[in-house]
Amino acid sequence: MPDSTDPRTLADCFTPCAVVDREKLEANIGRMNAGLADFEVDLRPHVKTSKSVEIAKRLTAGHSGAITVSTLTEAEHFADAAFTDILYAVGIVPSKLPRVAGLLARGVNLQVVMDSAETARLVAEWGHRNNRRIPALLEINSDDHRAGLDPDDPEIFAAATILHAAEGTIFRGVVTHAGASYDCDSVEAIRRLARQERNAAVAAADAIRTEGIPCDTVSVGSTPTALFATCLDGITEVRAGVYAFFDLFQAGLGCCRPEDIALSVLTSVIGHKQSLNTVLTDAGGLALSKDRGTANQSVDRKYGLVCTADTGEIIENLLVASVNQEHGILSTADGSPLPFDRLPIGSQLRILPNHACMTAAAYDQYAVVDGISPRVVGHWPRCGGWQ
Amino acid sequence: MPDSTDPRTLADCFTPCAVVDREKLEANIGRMNAGLADFEVDLRPHVKTSKSVEIAKRLTAGHSGAITVSTLTEAEHFADAAFTDILYAVGIVPSKLPRVAGLLARGVNLQVVMDSAETARLVAEWGHRNNRRIPALLEINSDDHRAGLDPDDPEIFAAATILHAAEGTIFRGVVTHAGASYDCDSVEAIRRLARQERNAAVAAADAIRTEGIPCDTVSVGSTPTALFATCLDGITEVRAGVYAFFDLFQAGLGCCRPEDIALSVLTSVIGHKQSLNTVLTDAGGLALSKDRGTANQSVDRKYGLVCTADTGEIIENLLVASVNQEHGILSTADGSPLPFDRLPIGSQLRILPNHACMTAAAYDQYAVVDGISPRVVGHWPRCGGWQ
Repeated sequence: MPDSTDPRTLADCFTPCAVVDREKLEANIGRMNAGLADFEVDLRPHVKTSKSVEIAKRLTAGHSGAITVSTLTEAEHFADAAFTDILYAVGIVPSKLPRVAGLLARGVNLQVVMDSAETARLVAEWGHRNNRRIPALLEINSDDHRAGLDPDDPEIFAAATILHAAEGTIFRGVVTHAGASYDCDSVEAIRRLARQERNAAVAAADAIRTEGIPCDTVSVGSTPTALFATCLDGITEVRAGVYAFFDLFQAGLGCCRPEDIALSVLTSVIGHKQSLNTVLTDAGGLALSKDRGTANQSVDRKYGLVCTADTGEIIENLLVASVNQEHGILSTADGSPLPFDRLPIGSQLRILPNHACMTAAAYDQYAVVDGISPRVVGHWPRCGGWQ
Repeated sequence: MPDSTDPRTLADCFTPCAVVDREKLEANIGRMNAGLADFEVDLRPHVKTSKSVEIAKRLTAGHSGAITVSTLTEAEHFADAAFTDILYAVGIVPSKLPRVAGLLARGVNLQVVMDSAETARLVAEWGHRNNRRIPALLEINSDDHRAGLDPDDPEIFAAATILHAAEGTIFRGVVTHAGASYDCDSVEAIRRLARQERNAAVAAADAIRTEGIPCDTVSVGSTPTALFATCLDGITEVRAGVYAFFDLFQAGLGCCRPEDIALSVLTSVIGHKQSLNTVLTDAGGLALSKDRGTANQSVDRKYGLVCTADTGEIIENLLVASVNQEHGILSTADGSPLPFDRLPIGSQLRILPNHACMTAAAYDQYAVVDGISPRVVGHWPRCGGWQ
C-alpha cells in the first residue's frame, strides 16, 4: 500500500485507487471563483463530493470558510479540522439532533434544514426539551426536483413562525437547490433555471420578511446554476460541490470539458478476451460506482472514459462498457477491434467517472498528481464512513 | 451511534444503517447446504457479498472452511480471523503479488486466478525472482460472460504447463463462473447453464490431465447455478455468495422470494412532497447503491422495495422510485396516492436492495435482528476498505 509519507509515482499505487489532478482541481476552483466574483455572494462549497480537508481548504480560500455537508459524519470530520460554519443540507429528523447538539456544543455553527411546519415543530420541541437552540433554515422548492416548500405556500409562514418564535430554534433563512439543472439540455436552459432558482429563494425570503420575521440567509446552488447564473440579486450565498472535480455527466451538461475532470480511478489491466473484443480491468462497480447518469444524455459514456495512466490523456474510442463488482470491462465505442497490444496485462489506465460524488465515495484517500506528471505529490485522506 | 456492546432496538439505530435478519440468513444458508448435500462437492462460499467474519463462520459451517474473496483486503481480513484456505477470484497481476506473498508467508493457502499464458508467465517469473511458489488456478470460460479461456483453447495447455513446471508457481486446477446465470429468464435456463458451467470446467480439467498435468481443483459457481445444478460430477467445489442475503435481483431470477431477503437498509422519513406524491428518506444512492439490476427483469423494483422497520414486512405498492446521493425518493408502484399518514416524518422504514453486494459495500457493520423482532441482537463488523 502507498506510504502516505513517501509520495512516489502512480506505478507504485495499488489499484484501484482514486487520483486527483491538482492542476485541474485548482483550475476548476478558480473558474467557479472567477464567475462568482461578479456577484456579492459568499460561496459555501459543498464538500460531499470531495470529502477532503485539503480540498475544502482550497474550495473555501478567498471566501468566508463556510461549507455545506450531506451527512453528520462529514460535519464532525470537518469540525475536527476547524471548519466552524457548516450547513447540513439534507432534511433533519429529531433522531439526528443529539449529534447536531454535540457539534453546537463544540462551538460549531451547525445549521439544519427542513421543509415542513411539522418538522419545525419537532425540532423546536426537541431543542426546548434539551435546552438547545438549533439554527434552522427552511428548504424552498424552486424546480419540483425533490424537496422544499413552494415559494407561495402559506406553510412557509407557519414553519418560519415556529422556528423564529420557539425557544428551541433560531430561524436563519431559506435554502433551495435547483437539482433540475441536471436535466437541462443546454446552457441557455441552465441560465433560465438559475434565474428561477434565484427568484424562488428571494420570493420566499421576501414573503417571510413581510411577516416581520428576519431572513438573513438566502442560499441557492448547484454546480450548473452556480456556473451560469446571470443574476444573484438578493442571494447571500451559493452552494456547489462537484465543480471541484467535474465528471462526465457535468461535461455532458456543458459545464466542463472531459479533459477538465480532476478525479480519475487508476486501474490495472487484468485480462484480454479477444473473442469478445474486451479488456478486463480491476475497476468495477465498487471502484467506479454503478451511476449511469450519462445514459440519458446525448452522448452515453457507459461507465467511464479511459485515459493513459501516466499523463491522464483520454484514449479515443475506448469505454468502460460494463462493470461487475470488481471487474471493469473495456471495449471500443464504435465496436472496432481493441488495440490489445497497447493495453498489456498488468499495465495501468485511468478512468474518468460518470459521477464524481458516487465514485469518490468508495475511497478513503486520493493519490494526488500535478498535471501530466505521474509523480504522486501527496495522499489526501477522505472522511471515513458517511452516515 | 449504536454501542456495539449494548444491543438495543432498531429505533435506536442511526440511519441509514444496514440490517441483517439472522433467521432469514440462516434459512438461506441452510437451503444452499441442503441442495449441495446431494453432491460430493465442497462449498467454498464467496464472502464478497457479506464481508463479515460472523457470517463467514455460518457460511462455512459443515464444509471445509475454504472461502472465496474478491480483493486482497478481504483476504487479509479473513486471514486475520483464522481463515486459511482462500481463493482470490479476480484475475491477478504482478503488482499485487507482494500482498499475496505476505499471506502465503503467514501460512494462508492463498490461491490466485488468471486466464492467459502471458499472466502465467508473469506470475511464474515473479515467484521465481522472489523465491515464492504462488498457488494458481486457470480461469475457464463457460458462458462468454466475462473472462476465462475456452475449454478447447490450446492456450490452456500452454498456461497449465507454465504453472505446473515453473519454480515460482504451483498449478492447482481450474475455475469457472457462469455469470450469464444472471441473464437467465427461467429456472430451466439456469439448470441448463449450470450443466454448461460444469461441462466446461470438467472438459478443461480432463484436457489438462490428458497432457500429464495434475488438476486437483475443479471449481464452479454462482448463486443461481449452485442452487439449481442437477449434475456436479467431476466438480470438487462450488462457489456462491449472494445466497446468504439474496436480493431483489435474485428474486427476479426465481432464486428466492422477496421475503427471503436477509439484508435491508434502515432509513428515516425526512420529508413529504404531496404535490409530487413522494416521500423523502435519508437512504439514497450511497446507502442503497445505484445498482439497477432489476431494470431489465420482468418486474422492475427501481431502487428497492419498502418494508416496515420493526417487522421487516413488505409494504405493498411502495417503491424507492429514485435516488440522489443522500436522498431516497419513495412513490407508489401504480401511481396511486401515497399513504402519507402512515409514513410520518421521523419514522423508520427498511429497504430491500436490488443487489446485496453493492448495497452492503457502503457499510462498516450490520445491525442484527432475529425475524420480526426489532431488538438488535448484535452488531457484526464488515471488512473495512475493499481494495
